[in-house]
Amino acid sequence: MQYLQQSFNVRFSYEVFFTRNLFESANTRLTGFLSAVADPAFQKKLLIVLDEGMLAHHPLLKQQIHTCLSAIPGFQLVPEMITVPGGEQVKNDDALLFRLVDAIDQYKIDRHSYVIGIGGGSLLDLVGFAAAISHRGVKHIRIPTTVLSQNDSGIGVKNGVNYKGKKNFLGSFAPPAAVFNDEAFLTTLQARDWCAGMVEAVKVALIKDAPFFEWMETHADALAGGNMADMQYLIYQCAALHLQHIGGGDPFESGSSRPLDFGHWSAHKLEQLTHFELRHGEAVAIGIALDSVYAFLLGWLDEPAMKRILQLLKKMQQPIWHPLLEKQAGGPSPVIAGLEEFREHLGGRLTITLLRAIGKGEEVHELDLELLYKAVDICKKNQS
Amino acid sequence: MQYLQQSFNVRFSYEVFFTRNLFESANTRLTGFLSAVADPAFQKKLLIVLDEGMLAHHPLLKQQIHTCLSAIPGFQLVPEMITVPGGEQVKNDDALLFRLVDAIDQYKIDRHSYVIGIGGGSLLDLVGFAAAISHRGVKHIRIPTTVLSQNDSGIGVKNGVNYKGKKNFLGSFAPPAAVFNDEAFLTTLQARDWCAGMVEAVKVALIKDAPFFEWMETHADALAGGNMADMQYLIYQCAALHLQHIGGGDPFESGSSRPLDFGHWSAHKLEQLTHFELRHGEAVAIGIALDSVYAFLLGWLDEPAMKRILQLLKKMQQPIWHPLLEKQAGGPSPVIAGLEEFREHLGGRLTITLLRAIGKGEEVHELDLELLYKAVDICKKNQS
Ligand SMILES: NC(=O)c1ccc[n+]([C@@H]2O[C@H](COP(=O)([O-])OP(=O)(O)OC[C@H]3O[C@@H](n4cnc5c(N)ncnc54)[C@H](O)[C@@H]3O)[C@@H](O)[C@H]2O)c1
Ligand SMILES: NC(=O)c1ccc[n+]([C@@H]2O[C@H](COP(=O)([O-])OP(=O)(O)OC[C@H]3O[C@@H](n4cnc5c(N)ncnc54)[C@H](O)[C@@H]3O)[C@@H](O)[C@H]2O)c1
Ligand SMILES: [Zn+2]
Ligand SMILES: [Zn+2]
Repeated sequence: MQYLQQSFNVRFSYEVFFTRNLFESANTRLTGFLSAVADPAFQKKLLIVLDEGMLAHHPLLKQQIHTCLSAIPGFQLVPEMITVPGGEQVKNDDALLFRLVDAIDQYKIDRHSYVIGIGGGSLLDLVGFAAAISHRGVKHIRIPTTVLSQNDSGIGVKNGVNYKGKKNFLGSFAPPAAVFNDEAFLTTLQARDWCAGMVEAVKVALIKDAPFFEWMETHADALAGGNMADMQYLIYQCAALHLQHIGGGDPFESGSSRPLDFGHWSAHKLEQLTHFELRHGEAVAIGIALDSVYAFLLGWLDEPAMKRILQLLKKMQQPIWHPLLEKQAGGPSPVIAGLEEFREHLGGRLTITLLRAIGKGEEVHELDLELLYKAVDICKKNQS
Repeated sequence: MQYLQQSFNVRFSYEVFFTRNLFESANTRLTGFLSAVADPAFQKKLLIVLDEGMLAHHPLLKQQIHTCLSAIPGFQLVPEMITVPGGEQVKNDDALLFRLVDAIDQYKIDRHSYVIGIGGGSLLDLVGFAAAISHRGVKHIRIPTTVLSQNDSGIGVKNGVNYKGKKNFLGSFAPPAAVFNDEAFLTTLQARDWCAGMVEAVKVALIKDAPFFEWMETHADALAGGNMADMQYLIYQCAALHLQHIGGGDPFESGSSRPLDFGHWSAHKLEQLTHFELRHGEAVAIGIALDSVYAFLLGWLDEPAMKRILQLLKKMQQPIWHPLLEKQAGGPSPVIAGLEEFREHLGGRLTITLLRAIGKGEEVHELDLELLYKAVDICKKNQS
């Protein structure tokens, strides 16, 4: 009579579909998915949440969604489609979180119904969290509409909102029911978002896949110039590498190791300190540059490799340095001082991924501050 | 290039320990557990949250906890122990939820540190939820101090708070790191809580374990009279049956079937309508009585079995009827009208467990309202 042991496995499974014009009548990706999960015994509901920044460029979308989803046997489309502004500030707004929770309540979205988020990574993080905490988790479908959300944030298992200025302080692990990547949305992105979204592909290639990095070098100009076929390959490859990593390792991050956060320790702090003036991808570009140069100074990465990395980021129109990385009048860089906060968010021992070579990440548990400031200088010199 | 498939398993594992006087210096259950998960590479923190209702009866506890936990290598006890009132109202208080989230932030509780909740099921549900949403889930340890939380609510995988009066509307599935059931806490319970906590054992025996039901019949007077040895057996057996069910089936409740919610459809509504005047166990006793009589009227359960069930509940000092079950002036019973709300909370098709025999639950997907009101009458007659 000393103790009882509880142990079980929970299986999670979902698909990430690649398509074009998801809501056109000829496209049966989403309708087919829904029909396959319909249950003759009861109606499931569909609640749509839309990103206004995206919607402004897709004025017919609401009508198309209505046509597409209002007549699927077994499903009932909630008549009100909820719109939220989009962009990082939606993650800073408690009231918005509870507006979504209230809608789930009001429209009686149960654990067998679906909340469908359509928008950038910020909106999807917010919607995923609202769904995850309502009724202990209602199902959600993600339709990411930015490069970053299609290749990284929208296809994984995490959600989150900011709390008291702390990035993703509140959140959970809640895999989606399905993800639909529709390339047509990308045609209306600002050039800045189009380009910044590619940085996560550079990141994952650097730690895992040298040939993919080389492919991006070859196609950098076309990518930055808006070539959609190349962008589709980049997104697919980047998404595949992320999914592989998540599914193959520690999906709910019980350990301290998070190679996919390569370049992110300074990026998170930079986003916060610039009040999210920097796009996430831009901040990560700076973070990757900094940590790559640091790895070079440490003797891990050779100089040509380091230069290729800076070069690729610059070809993708990304910044590789920021004034907040430097010592400020009378004190340290506030970004570098933020290292401890990053450790807390990850939990456990400080664990930072650096590079041994292009395609090969490796972890360290401390950073030498003097070397770090030297790396900042080199980034600054290479910036222009 | 059509889709990517993501699939993975996540393993969850924890122990439920049974002990007495956990915080006395000779007791190494908790200290041993913590020492085994210490990491030489970094300090883990311990944040304690206490139930004031319990604390009033255990005035030395804070000091004992301090002595016990402040000198474990690898751990740092947060100096402020947080106290919250305890009881159902803590689940109705948003500000309290965010007070705990703020404490996790302020005291830098990371994903490798522990929040330790000590109290009744209400406090544990609140603490579990606050931990689950902070940093996408910090670890929590549960030290349940009521019969109900030691045999059911504190040992499972769910947490939750009420939202706009809706029971457990916000919550998540988040298994604890460990559970420590300390029988010494039970000695200070009000007789009412001592008795009401046994109802979950009646419930689980009725759907799964006839011999356990018979054992309770034999020991009913001793149990109701405060016999601790018998209560320990009841708690152990009830906890084991719950753990088995959770681990063996659908731990995160993706389906509509929830046999452990036998007797609960009316109970949840009764709790809410009485503003939680009824204890959870008392409400479930009424719910079990109602559904058992209903099963009898349906021809599923024979009359002697039905009578034994009512008899056992009454011997445990439980109510088996409530005026709100009856038709009210000019309208239906508000409890019975709440059937639809219960379906929404579970999600999907209405699924109610009834009894074929003592020890054998079976599901139905609809209830006959006329028969239900007849069952209410029979409960009323048997009440006195
Ligand atoms: N959950 C995760 O695993 C994860 C991973 C990485 C990043 N993220 C998060 O993702 C967020 C960033 O997402 P993002 O880069 O997609 O940016 P975003 O969601 O902030 O959107 C940027 C802007 O683009 C607009 N927009 C969206 N789709 C558009 C379209 N098709 N056409 C025109 N405009 C459009 C939005 O309204 C917004 O103004 C950050 O909060 C980041 O922390 C989450
Ligand atoms: N998470 C789950 O799976 C699950 C399952 C069943 C029930 N629950 C929830 O559990 C809650 C009920 O929990 P409960 O029955 O433990 O009651 P409770 O937590 O509401 O506590 C009842 C009273 O007992 C006091 N108390 C606690 N320990 C004491 C002690 N040792 N001595 C004296 N007084 C003490 C409390 O302060 C409170 O006033 C409900 O909210 C119910 O919904 C959760
Ligand atoms: Zn990122
Ligand atoms: Zn219960």
